Amino acid sequence: MIGRFKYDGEIFNGVASDGRVIVDRGLYSDTFMLSELELLPPTQPSKIVCVGLNYIDHARELSMPIPKNPLLFLKPPSAVTVHLGNIVYPGKTRQVEYEAELAVIIGKRCKNIRAADAGSVIMGYTCFNDVTARDLQKKDTQWTRAKSFDTFAPVGPYIADAGLDVGDLLIKTRVNGKLRQESSTSNLIFDVPDLIEFISGIMTLECGDIIATGTPPGVGELFVGDEVEIEIENIGILKNFVVRED
Amino acid sequence: MIGRFKYDGEIFNGVASDGRVIVDRGLYSDTFMLSELELLPPTQPSKIVCVGLNYIDHARELSMPIPKNPLLFLKPPSAVTVHLGNIVYPGKTRQVEYEAELAVIIGKRCKNIRAADAGSVIMGYTCFNDVTARDLQKKDTQWTRAKSFDTFAPVGPYIADAGLDVGDLLIKTRVNGKLRQESSTSNLIFDVPDLIEFISGIMTLECGDIIATGTPPGVGELFVGDEVEIEIENIGILKNFVVRED
Repeated sequence: MIGRFKYDGEIFNGVASDGRVIVDRGLYSDTFMLSELELLPPTQPSKIVCVGLNYIDHARELSMPIPKNPLLFLKPPSAVTVHLGNIVYPGKTRQVEYEAELAVIIGKRCKNIRAADAGSVIMGYTCFNDVTARDLQKKDTQWTRAKSFDTFAPVGPYIADAGLDVGDLLIKTRVNGKLRQESSTSNLIFDVPDLIEFISGIMTLECGDIIATGTPPGVGELFVGDEVEIEIENIGILKNFVVRED
Repeated sequence: MIGRFKYDGEIFNGVASDGRVIVDRGLYSDTFMLSELELLPPTQPSKIVCVGLNYIDHARELSMPIPKNPLLFLKPPSAVTVHLGNIVYPGKTRQVEYEAELAVIIGKRCKNIRAADAGSVIMGYTCFNDVTARDLQKKDTQWTRAKSFDTFAPVGPYIADAGLDVGDLLIKTRVNGKLRQESSTSNLIFDVPDLIEFISGIMTLECGDIIATGTPPGVGELFVGDEVEIEIENIGILKNFVVRED
């Protein structure tokens, strides 16, 4: 699991396991205690490309038609927040919801990648919460306002290696410990290689970019004071706290 | 007029006028001939926030309702292209259209800016062409695919100072020299200060970010071989060439 960390003003990547972080310095490596480092979001994307309605049951749940192609939208990089960071509940909405998603982190600049070659451009996988102001999403024809508030893109905590088979991983949301979403990535309408072919056929993907692959059924509300966890099997648990806007 | 330039591997900002570029080096300044420099897009945005249907006549032209709030969408930074660069006509669309827009360039990181204070966060203004695959825009509920192809965000050539009054500037599109759009920024439904208040109330804006303020009536098709110019009074002319995808 690769993470991004800060210590004494320096920002670096490291391999986290068993409470320790190993940082490759080239000729040698440093070992830190995880507890002495500040955890950062595992990537700084130039863009976050999201896929709507990509679990067949979620599309039905929202009474939206099943797309024939992946339905794309973007979230701004300014929305990224870290594991254990706060999701700030904006005063401009009355209905903030969680959406558990498998995120693909792109490993190198690429364009027009065939699905069969998608593995070569993947850095790895992490957890993503596509936090959405559902009331604003319903008001606007475009979802940008509803999905672009600061802290509405929790990501992390770490990046699991691209070697992981993500074809059938449990994906769950818990709010205050209670299970709210539970599905498997095997229910994706468009799988990761399909999505990389489709998206990279439109836009150049940059190293560090995030593709958020859509959310399963069971979306629901968050309230100030809630603790929300996105868990993906063999990847990790992304936990955040919902707080009131100042 | 501030531009971004490249010369001998170095990238820098400079003040362009009368075929010369003056580069402030601190204690002294360098002067280049404009013709010896490579022109770059005048900004490298972390995000491009666009406003839909913000000229009242354009909304009518598309038979879309007049929004009560600014209708936001995002284009990815990977879509940016430079003045005199190519707009690549993707094989995946049969209807590429121009959209002339006044672009605001943000001058500093900011959040929750009141309209009355918007001037303090504006670096300046430039021309923007919100190139759109209209057929795909009509197919998808979200506009992201239609508006995110590489080269679909021509911007520039230079940034006019924030001191410019943009309340009533002529904005035009010419294709192969023929006038296709002509309006005034006085026809904006939501003006620049309103937009900055609205958008910065949702997301943190970063220095260099682009707000594209919407397009007036007269949108129409581009074809391979076309030369398209976006002209905004007192700001400049952004010219691009439409070429076939390889």
